[in-house]
Amino acid sequence: MSKELVFGHQNPDTDAIVAAKAFSYLQNEIGYDTEPVMLGEANAETKFAFNHFGEELPRIITTAADEVNSVMLVDHNEAPQSVSDIADVEVTHVVDHHRIADFATAGPVWYTARPVGCTSTIILDLFIENDIEIPVKLAGLMASAIISDTLLLKSPTTTDFDINALETLAKIAKIDSENYGLDLLKAGTDLDSKSDLQLVDGDAKTFELGGKKLRIGQVNTVDLDDVFARREALVTTMKAEINSNGYDMFLLLATNILNSDSKLLAVGEPKETVAAAFGKKFDTDNTMSLPGVVSRKKQVVPPLTDAFA
Amino acid sequence: MSKELVFGHQNPDTDAIVAAKAFSYLQNEIGYDTEPVMLGEANAETKFAFNHFGEELPRIITTAADEVNSVMLVDHNEAPQSVSDIADVEVTHVVDHHRIADFATAGPVWYTARPVGCTSTIILDLFIENDIEIPVKLAGLMASAIISDTLLLKSPTTTDFDINALETLAKIAKIDSENYGLDLLKAGTDLDSKSDLQLVDGDAKTFELGGKKLRIGQVNTVDLDDVFARREALVTTMKAEINSNGYDMFLLLATNILNSDSKLLAVGEPKETVAAAFGKKFDTDNTMSLPGVVSRKKQVVPPLTDAFA
Repeated sequence: MSKELVFGHQNPDTDAIVAAKAFSYLQNEIGYDTEPVMLGEANAETKFAFNHFGEELPRIITTAADEVNSVMLVDHNEAPQSVSDIADVEVTHVVDHHRIADFATAGPVWYTARPVGCTSTIILDLFIENDIEIPVKLAGLMASAIISDTLLLKSPTTTDFDINALETLAKIAKIDSENYGLDLLKAGTDLDSKSDLQLVDGDAKTFELGGKKLRIGQVNTVDLDDVFARREALVTTMKAEINSNGYDMFLLLATNILNSDSKLLAVGEPKETVAAAFGKKFDTDNTMSLPGVVSRKKQVVPPLTDAFA
Repeated sequence: MSKELVFGHQNPDTDAIVAAKAFSYLQNEIGYDTEPVMLGEANAETKFAFNHFGEELPRIITTAADEVNSVMLVDHNEAPQSVSDIADVEVTHVVDHHRIADFATAGPVWYTARPVGCTSTIILDLFIENDIEIPVKLAGLMASAIISDTLLLKSPTTTDFDINALETLAKIAKIDSENYGLDLLKAGTDLDSKSDLQLVDGDAKTFELGGKKLRIGQVNTVDLDDVFARREALVTTMKAEINSNGYDMFLLLATNILNSDSKLLAVGEPKETVAAAFGKKFDTDNTMSLPGVVSRKKQVVPPLTDAFA
């Protein structure tokens, strides 16, 4: 059996990197030959988690076909979010918790998608089904991924599966998920150290909606003013990204992780369609308050998908 | 929770109907409100199985959106193989063992695909994972589906998962899978009672490959001559189907279930691309021997997908 690479989406967050590491470990225990890799630099939150549990980050790749014939995807399935040469390799496995789009295979495939808050929640189930023990450090990383994706179980994407998984993993990793979780989330909100490009694009994903190419970034903070004090510089950066990457729009969702409110900043057109998606209007500075919205996947992409259809 | 319909592909075979019945039963035990239905008449083999185990066939539907808002798909995922108004309903669950193509959702979904020989094999695992007991008659039907899809475990699509699943289900259903299996398969090969259209189109599926629309039928027999004695009439029917449905090609794979050989009959263009897919040429009567080929999914669609790409 030839070697396969396992990776999450571009602009990897904690779940994208941890799920790759966890699924690769599981598949190797089952008998596959895999290596976890990542499609970009880890963010501050992810580095905090790997540091805390004394684990090394996977290496970064930009192409896969020069190394392997086939790959396993975690935490994504859409081609624009994957490795640049995804069309040149065979996808044999997918574990994901997002919508399915722009994904096709020539033959049958292993695909496990569940509408839960975090890929690592699904992977814990796969460990249990296959009767494979989870190493202590890996359990700590998987708990971190759940805390990160669900904002400590506060995001509306959180399901009972995530709550139970975090409890199970925290027990194995011997952590207090509340205390550790707040430290982890705060580690990801140090915006002063981020460039304008890192802030708008660091967690961004590309979506093809009704023929339009939307780039949607999200940034967590403990104070929305920390983000919007930099509004002018951010807009300039988003315009430049639109021009150099051929996006139609760039949306930035800034989310206050303490009170679960967000503010959306839009650059490009058609803004009217975005406004219609949320049933409200943009302010004159092209921002829009979205109280209670914290999940790009569950509260932003689905209404946009409908509005652009 | 509002009611959902569960169904397999158009031109349903035994697995398409049984998997719908089994998955609906499982989901109802878990707490959903579902009803299994089918997208067309059951074939002779499927009727034999339902008769044998004293079960009633599900009712036939042609549209779903007039009854429900959401559906669960088994044994298929591609829109052209699904209910006619699939675009008007939400897909919440998929259990399948085919390639993934022409499938997209607005939000996260339950999707379980595994490269095994039969959907019912996967559903058995889902019963076990959810700790739900399988009724004796349903086990007999699920065993029938595995026998049907794997040609009594002889198809190259057969995996260890299917072998183990059939053993488990045969034990629950108290059947000798070898004896019962041959009776079941033979019940499906009575070609004399089939019209030309039933023969070419009864098990056919539509595939969009590289911009071309291919209709691919398969018929099982115990003697290939029983099929090709009717070649001229079949070609006439296939041409008529091409004209009335806008297909580019109609391919018919006739498979001898006793010795696992097939013969392919092609109508429409580009025949050269089809020939290239199998690395051989068509005879002057537009047929091609394909020794050892018994699986449309594993041995026909993948090389065609590559050749048309």
